[in-house]
Amino acid sequence: MELAKFVYKDLVRSALAEDLGTGDLTSALTIPANTPGSGRFMAKANGVICGWSLVQEVFHQLNPSVFLDLHQPDGAQVQAGDLLAVISGPVQDLLSGERVALNFLQHLSGIATTTRELVDLMADFPRVRLVDTRKTLPGLRAIQKYAVRVGGGYNHRFNLADAVLIKDNHLKACGSIDAAVAKVRAAVPHTMKIEVEVESEAEVREALAAEADIIMLDNMSPAMMTAMVQLIDGRALVEASGNISKETIRTIAACGVDLISVGRLTHSVQALDISLQLV
Amino acid sequence: MELAKFVYKDLVRSALAEDLGTGDLTSALTIPANTPGSGRFMAKANGVICGWSLVQEVFHQLNPSVFLDLHQPDGAQVQAGDLLAVISGPVQDLLSGERVALNFLQHLSGIATTTRELVDLMADFPRVRLVDTRKTLPGLRAIQKYAVRVGGGYNHRFNLADAVLIKDNHLKACGSIDAAVAKVRAAVPHTMKIEVEVESEAEVREALAAEADIIMLDNMSPAMMTAMVQLIDGRALVEASGNISKETIRTIAACGVDLISVGRLTHSVQALDISLQLV
Amino acid sequence: MELAKFVYKDLVRSALAEDLGTGDLTSALTIPANTPGSGRFMAKANGVICGWSLVQEVFHQLNPSVFLDLHQPDGAQVQAGDLLAVISGPVQDLLSGERVALNFLQHLSGIATTTRELVDLMADFPRVRLVDTRKTLPGLRAIQKYAVRVGGGYNHRFNLADAVLIKDNHLKACGSIDAAVAKVRAAVPHTMKIEVEVESEAEVREALAAEADIIMLDNMSPAMMTAMVQLIDGRALVEASGNISKETIRTIAACGVDLISVGRLTHSVQALDISLQLV
Amino acid sequence: MELAKFVYKDLVRSALAEDLGTGDLTSALTIPANTPGSGRFMAKANGVICGWSLVQEVFHQLNPSVFLDLHQPDGAQVQAGDLLAVISGPVQDLLSGERVALNFLQHLSGIATTTRELVDLMADFPRVRLVDTRKTLPGLRAIQKYAVRVGGGYNHRFNLADAVLIKDNHLKACGSIDAAVAKVRAAVPHTMKIEVEVESEAEVREALAAEADIIMLDNMSPAMMTAMVQLIDGRALVEASGNISKETIRTIAACGVDLISVGRLTHSVQALDISLQLV
Amino acid sequence: MELAKFVYKDLVRSALAEDLGTGDLTSALTIPANTPGSGRFMAKANGVICGWSLVQEVFHQLNPSVFLDLHQPDGAQVQAGDLLAVISGPVQDLLSGERVALNFLQHLSGIATTTRELVDLMADFPRVRLVDTRKTLPGLRAIQKYAVRVGGGYNHRFNLADAVLIKDNHLKACGSIDAAVAKVRAAVPHTMKIEVEVESEAEVREALAAEADIIMLDNMSPAMMTAMVQLIDGRALVEASGNISKETIRTIAACGVDLISVGRLTHSVQALDISLQLV
Amino acid sequence: MELAKFVYKDLVRSALAEDLGTGDLTSALTIPANTPGSGRFMAKANGVICGWSLVQEVFHQLNPSVFLDLHQPDGAQVQAGDLLAVISGPVQDLLSGERVALNFLQHLSGIATTTRELVDLMADFPRVRLVDTRKTLPGLRAIQKYAVRVGGGYNHRFNLADAVLIKDNHLKACGSIDAAVAKVRAAVPHTMKIEVEVESEAEVREALAAEADIIMLDNMSPAMMTAMVQLIDGRALVEASGNISKETIRTIAACGVDLISVGRLTHSVQALDISLQLV
Repeated sequence: MELAKFVYKDLVRSALAEDLGTGDLTSALTIPANTPGSGRFMAKANGVICGWSLVQEVFHQLNPSVFLDLHQPDGAQVQAGDLLAVISGPVQDLLSGERVALNFLQHLSGIATTTRELVDLMADFPRVRLVDTRKTLPGLRAIQKYAVRVGGGYNHRFNLADAVLIKDNHLKACGSIDAAVAKVRAAVPHTMKIEVEVESEAEVREALAAEADIIMLDNMSPAMMTAMVQLIDGRALVEASGNISKETIRTIAACGVDLISVGRLTHSVQALDISLQLV
Repeated sequence: MELAKFVYKDLVRSALAEDLGTGDLTSALTIPANTPGSGRFMAKANGVICGWSLVQEVFHQLNPSVFLDLHQPDGAQVQAGDLLAVISGPVQDLLSGERVALNFLQHLSGIATTTRELVDLMADFPRVRLVDTRKTLPGLRAIQKYAVRVGGGYNHRFNLADAVLIKDNHLKACGSIDAAVAKVRAAVPHTMKIEVEVESEAEVREALAAEADIIMLDNMSPAMMTAMVQLIDGRALVEASGNISKETIRTIAACGVDLISVGRLTHSVQALDISLQLV
Repeated sequence: MELAKFVYKDLVRSALAEDLGTGDLTSALTIPANTPGSGRFMAKANGVICGWSLVQEVFHQLNPSVFLDLHQPDGAQVQAGDLLAVISGPVQDLLSGERVALNFLQHLSGIATTTRELVDLMADFPRVRLVDTRKTLPGLRAIQKYAVRVGGGYNHRFNLADAVLIKDNHLKACGSIDAAVAKVRAAVPHTMKIEVEVESEAEVREALAAEADIIMLDNMSPAMMTAMVQLIDGRALVEASGNISKETIRTIAACGVDLISVGRLTHSVQALDISLQLV
Repeated sequence: MELAKFVYKDLVRSALAEDLGTGDLTSALTIPANTPGSGRFMAKANGVICGWSLVQEVFHQLNPSVFLDLHQPDGAQVQAGDLLAVISGPVQDLLSGERVALNFLQHLSGIATTTRELVDLMADFPRVRLVDTRKTLPGLRAIQKYAVRVGGGYNHRFNLADAVLIKDNHLKACGSIDAAVAKVRAAVPHTMKIEVEVESEAEVREALAAEADIIMLDNMSPAMMTAMVQLIDGRALVEASGNISKETIRTIAACGVDLISVGRLTHSVQALDISLQLV
Repeated sequence: MELAKFVYKDLVRSALAEDLGTGDLTSALTIPANTPGSGRFMAKANGVICGWSLVQEVFHQLNPSVFLDLHQPDGAQVQAGDLLAVISGPVQDLLSGERVALNFLQHLSGIATTTRELVDLMADFPRVRLVDTRKTLPGLRAIQKYAVRVGGGYNHRFNLADAVLIKDNHLKACGSIDAAVAKVRAAVPHTMKIEVEVESEAEVREALAAEADIIMLDNMSPAMMTAMVQLIDGRALVEASGNISKETIRTIAACGVDLISVGRLTHSVQALDISLQLV
Repeated sequence: MELAKFVYKDLVRSALAEDLGTGDLTSALTIPANTPGSGRFMAKANGVICGWSLVQEVFHQLNPSVFLDLHQPDGAQVQAGDLLAVISGPVQDLLSGERVALNFLQHLSGIATTTRELVDLMADFPRVRLVDTRKTLPGLRAIQKYAVRVGGGYNHRFNLADAVLIKDNHLKACGSIDAAVAKVRAAVPHTMKIEVEVESEAEVREALAAEADIIMLDNMSPAMMTAMVQLIDGRALVEASGNISKETIRTIAACGVDLISVGRLTHSVQALDISLQLV
């Protein structure tokens, strides 16, 4: 699913305002206005590319005449050295937008790349979804979640208003899972599923009794998770959560859960190395 | 230097809007309004803490009566298990703000922690500054650069309008370093220094002849850098740039440069693990 | 569930800007600054009151010293002539905020009143939910949906991003309900239910086969709806939709559907008559 | 007088943001990008059409290639079943904008329709103006007042800053109509007329003595109004105000007043039923 | 009439953003946080003071604890050397806000001073109003017009939407003054007066015939103006316009016009010299 | 250096909003839509023209089809009576944008004109820069500083964040120039120069010892300045500041300073008289 333009237009605008201030002094003073030129986006590492619509918007806002010719679209798996895209237009504008464009492209490609790596590690369990979390960087959630999808992952809820996830603190205030789920179900739109975070078998049983739609197993051992999946037996979706790594994800997928959520997909992003070489 | 409030007030506001949408359904439905409570921010890894003013603003915007009692202020080096702060106020508000607060705190503490690590590696060369770059995450530049300072690093220019950095593409358009520096000097405010990026000894000599204030040595070997520092001999500040890592930074500092700029301080941030435990 | 303040703060601000322009000329010129006064909000018709938090915010933005003493809170059923609240503060500010405050209060109370009327008509079917739609007035959706809840109704999805509702045009493009549901289910967050709009028994069967979570019966006769409810038999939630009125709602509720959605709750609102009398 | 584009551009933008959130999930997942299509706006009730410029802007913001072919422009009186306009463009965009477009069109056409109905009831008194009030829906005043004009009505002042209307509370603070008018006249721009609300013959006489430009007769009987019009005898414009209905408006117009203001034109709008049928 | 706070709050905010950028480096680095201090606003020239509410808002936004003790309120006529106000609070904040505060205060006091000068020159003609124009500085119109009032002048219309002024280009398009006035009167709110700009006796006669409420005599000689005033004889307000100076204003006032409009009150402002001396 | 479009786009937008409100009533009612026309911008005084990009943006925002044909570009020295530009497009839009366009053009041309006058007075000292200050009008700083450049002047720092200027109050808090410069140098980006304001020879010596990059001589006599320039002898840039006028600027330039800063370039602007005559 494409990233809708109205989602990132203002974001690009404020990113440009942040980087340009009252204008790119160096380029304005050294490059004659309207000198045409072009540049090549090159991969300097292996990974999955993501973020061209933002790159395009960056240059479009600077100068609608800039043209971007994509060689490797969002989702493409590329090798270091691959030509990703060719951009052409006034050199002043190419230089003024270069850094903001790369900041978006490298960050989102970093997310897509890590997501793809983890998804590939679970290739034997195609029914298991790798999902993101709300551990995103302020202001970037919509585009980070898009990058997760581009990398082959799936999205969890977008924010606190569009789904329900009952955690231990909510449970404590209500006295029981049953009471908490009942209170919530009585009030939220019928379009929302209700998810409950549990830490023990007893809580799993309570969640099942309360007819929770989704049960999140928090920080359980693989053996425990396997047992809980058998106990739940399809009566609810099962989400594994908590410090999942490259080393452990395959084992967890093998437990039979439906979903594995990983915060570091978006909170600890290693940028993918990409350069823009003007010619 | 403290982070000024007007710098982050709107950022916190839009981060809350992003995460709360039309409201935190789960907390509103399970926690009675005005139930008082408190929580403990705990370090779950070693590092340098950064970002309390944003945490404070997050909860202040939700409810001015929330109170934050700091045990480890910005800049403190903490160990996994340390109590960082105690927060108290209505439980609904503590839960509604938890994720946004942690997203800021973990990200900025991650930057401060990596910065401190690199600075410590150069401890024998106290005159050498570790500096950041414009490779920041869109919308977060001001707070990321603050975190670099908190970690013991220094800031490079903020954006394209407040300093001049002449790179190879600018040079090509002007024909020579001399011409480029002359054009720029003739026009920019007298308060700005002029920096030139060079790739060879010939360019270093040109930059010196043009009386550049700062010379950036791009991707040079340590031996080459040492030679260039001797050639420059204090006539300009010298900045080393390009793929600097934990392994190489000490060697580069030993070359005698004044500044070492590292993009990954801000473009590839590993969040510091911190939790908020409500009681 | 309370209306969260950040949802309406900017709305109140722009409503005041719209009505005050560069200032309330008449009050500023005729009322001495700081003359204290008070006013009584009076019901001039029977209904359900809704919108005090907006009224409070209107006056708070004009002058934080204005005090609102509620006699009939949101959700109260009142009679013409009832005293609803007493407001006190500088007369200039009471007069400057009066119209904006009443515009909010009368509109939202109108929604709550109509909602309550319809809910009361279905009193024998307490399991059936009266729900709103996306047929709201631009910019007012969050507060209109709050008023529906205050009146005893429930909310359908908030917007196009937080739930899925597959209508005939979507179906046509996919060829079948099965294909459409499959495409959507493969991509949307696991927290969302999938709703399908159907117009015939054949489509109901298809929707059941596709395991749709919610089935919307569009413009069917009561007899047909009753039959479809029996056919569905609890395998999906059932929503009745299409030109439902005071005259027909009880009959439709008796069909056994789970939800009845009514657009005119929010698109054709009769304001509740309320006055503010200064003393 | 056309509605100026800068008046509604931001309003449309925020209406789309409200309804689309991070994107129209259902359409994006079921309709192939760029599938062309068209749709027909059809009247499902009799009335006066109003709001095409907003409809056009809605689709233009989603995709500038969408084309709207009007058959019944703003102000046209239509019958149920009439084809109003044909819209063509990518089906995804037509579906994503449908609801927001209809929400504007149905609301404004509802206002124009009711206005026209009341204006037609006063057809024998063409000199009498039906005027709106400040009882508008927050954020929608400019477009609501446009719809009143399209329906054959006239606008009263736009807000508290662009005209003076002295009401009883202002009078009390000044001691007399004479004092109030004098204070105001001494300060406001010479381009503004001064209106005074009166409730008795004594007050009418005072207002005339104070040379008020406009006198508003508040909630008077027709007999009383007729007498007051004779007393005023052209020395001021006369406005009738207060609970005017379809049943009473003709009688009031016959009293000889110049203006009849009706709050429900904008505060209690019955949407005109219009559909968009994709083909 | 006081300047309403919502009119200037955002203006002050953006003025601070403009001047502070990411923060006042010099003060933050040289002044210890929370060092208390105070400063004295001193007049360095004779004039009329205007703008304290903006000064107050500047410091309030930086730090609500800053306190301003006024000695010479808005409208006071002061001498060079007079103490105008004492401000106290954290020195960092006093220094950070100093320039923005003075920029407002000096500009507005400059307007009030010039206005007062011209008003004093017409002291023998107290019935004649000195009025401003739309020749204001972008973004500052509301506060500039306030300063005109503080200096003893009056405001003309605020913008193109709140009053009608028919100029020669409008007349040409309509064919005659009569046609233009008729078109306008048939459509604008009844609360607005209609002003016509005329350049000859013939046009004055036409304007009278059309019952224009206000007639603007554009660039006429004093003799001509006197004749026109006699011709108009109270049937319309008369405004003199066009290159009015200190030298000519008294003569023009003597012609018997009601209003004299002067663009340079706001388009060519000489700042009043005021300093802030910290102690 | 051209004024970047993103610097003034929002400024133009809010200037139009300020002047148009809900629309230009007079033009909309008297000029048939789409009537084509053209107008001539004429100089009515001698001066330097500045601001066409803002004029263009004003009309572009009203109607993209308006065309501006420049005869005298930014920086041109013109005589009263010169044709500056011809504008063509719908008359309604030309009239609606006229005032805002002229308000920008006259103000900026006024700044450029005065700047050019002062620069010409120092023609014998081409090495001396006339520079502006932070004494600008709120919201207009970027375009005012552009006008200074167009007039032949130079810019000082843009705001408090992009350069350091240590004044007497900062010095007092630190105890000495040496301490203040040291504190600042230890923290600010290496791209910034450090300027110190001094009032005596002792302070000049201190500033030199502290290796300040720029020394501002505040309100010194010409003789004193000449002596200080000799003392400094090229070790720092020297800026003269304080009440510089047409009468004194040549004398001050002759003292050998590098920079002369003049606040009234931007705080006391005499608009250049320019008219737009429609044909």
